[in-house]
Amino acid sequence: MTSNRPSLHTILSPALLHLYDVTDSIVVIIDVLRATSTITTALYNGAASVIPVDTVSGAIQLGQTLPDSITAGERDGRVAEGLAHGNSPFEYPTDFVRGRTLVLTTTNGTKLLHMALEKGAGEIITGSFPNLSAVCTHLLASNKNVLLGCAAWKDRVNLEDTLFAGAVIDRIGKAFTMNCDSSHMAHSLYRLAKDDLFGYMRDQDASHYHRLMNYGLEKDIRYCLTPDGANILPVFDGLRLVNKLP
Amino acid sequence: MTSNRPSLHTILSPALLHLYDVTDSIVVIIDVLRATSTITTALYNGAASVIPVDTVSGAIQLGQTLPDSITAGERDGRVAEGLAHGNSPFEYPTDFVRGRTLVLTTTNGTKLLHMALEKGAGEIITGSFPNLSAVCTHLLASNKNVLLGCAAWKDRVNLEDTLFAGAVIDRIGKAFTMNCDSSHMAHSLYRLAKDDLFGYMRDQDASHYHRLMNYGLEKDIRYCLTPDGANILPVFDGLRLVNKLP
Repeated sequence: MTSNRPSLHTILSPALLHLYDVTDSIVVIIDVLRATSTITTALYNGAASVIPVDTVSGAIQLGQTLPDSITAGERDGRVAEGLAHGNSPFEYPTDFVRGRTLVLTTTNGTKLLHMALEKGAGEIITGSFPNLSAVCTHLLASNKNVLLGCAAWKDRVNLEDTLFAGAVIDRIGKAFTMNCDSSHMAHSLYRLAKDDLFGYMRDQDASHYHRLMNYGLEKDIRYCLTPDGANILPVFDGLRLVNKLP
Repeated sequence: MTSNRPSLHTILSPALLHLYDVTDSIVVIIDVLRATSTITTALYNGAASVIPVDTVSGAIQLGQTLPDSITAGERDGRVAEGLAHGNSPFEYPTDFVRGRTLVLTTTNGTKLLHMALEKGAGEIITGSFPNLSAVCTHLLASNKNVLLGCAAWKDRVNLEDTLFAGAVIDRIGKAFTMNCDSSHMAHSLYRLAKDDLFGYMRDQDASHYHRLMNYGLEKDIRYCLTPDGANILPVFDGLRLVNKLP
């Protein structure tokens, strides 16, 4: 029975992605603060698609060629120079994004997504607390091997992405074979933290928590740690992320 | 006051070592099951030194040139072909090792040690539960930046090395600046596990726990998870590990 279950692994940093076989797997890109939370929210609010771009110059260039697009992104947690918008989910309400294309570049999430693409991932979706249930439902229904890919911070392991991996495992881990200490660690940490994710991040002195709090972004952090506020499923088609749920 | 404290980081896999500045730092090589536990035990039992070697052929060759040496090592958790001894701490009692040189090659710990050497680490020591207190005392007294380097398993993060990092942090973390989510995660996990490390490893389905249990090595695991059974301090001099405590 065990052997028939697909496998699930957690990749705590993009620098560990090469250790895993991404082909025939669903790779879940996780960048909780804030890229994948913002992608989910923009699509939930009606954006036509989100195009992740590696560089600021690439985002500017693409924005100029796409009618009615929005260029956005951050470097080191702040709006990147030359881009009109940032990486906060609250910048993308329905009035603003409906039907439009968001061209987004971020420090970590975009990079991991393109790495997974280059390595030939079977499917690439994005995960965040706002779409936790949609991600879990999809992974269960697909019955494929799963790689939970934490975008981390410049390849350094971070707490919030690990906690999201743990949340997925807490909900659906039993349906998978998990010969993966990182997954068990993520699950343990999530179970410790789940009753108050924000408080746990604060008490653990999480580095990115501090970075964003210093920018006055407590509201962003709280939203990005709250499950199911924007339950759609961003799927990457090789160029853009589009919502695959009605 | 905070800024005067040296920094402490936890490196969950050798594949993340490049993200950290090892110069002017003490790097603690951690390979709980079982390389660094065995190194500590052999030195505690009177071995003159332990020479870590990358390859099995290198260990054989060196053993032939060193009088009264013992060649030992494992690949994938078992005695490597061509070597006389394995990687169990119980293979190196006082009768056998006193005054002799142990030439040791292991899957993960040796590799990380040489990586730290090549990157110019300020000092390299080895850490394991049997010498937990000696490691902590030395790190406190040194007042230098610390990198807790987990040897992991073929670059995949493992639970036991992470737990040892957490144990060090639990004892002396407050003396350091820890802007490092991996360290906070390791500490959280250790606090969950500390009352019964063996039981935690079992319940968490730790991958290396299973590997060694399948080889009938429960006694090894229990010893390797027990603090302070062999409280000496292995320090690497560029070629060999020698005990720096009386």
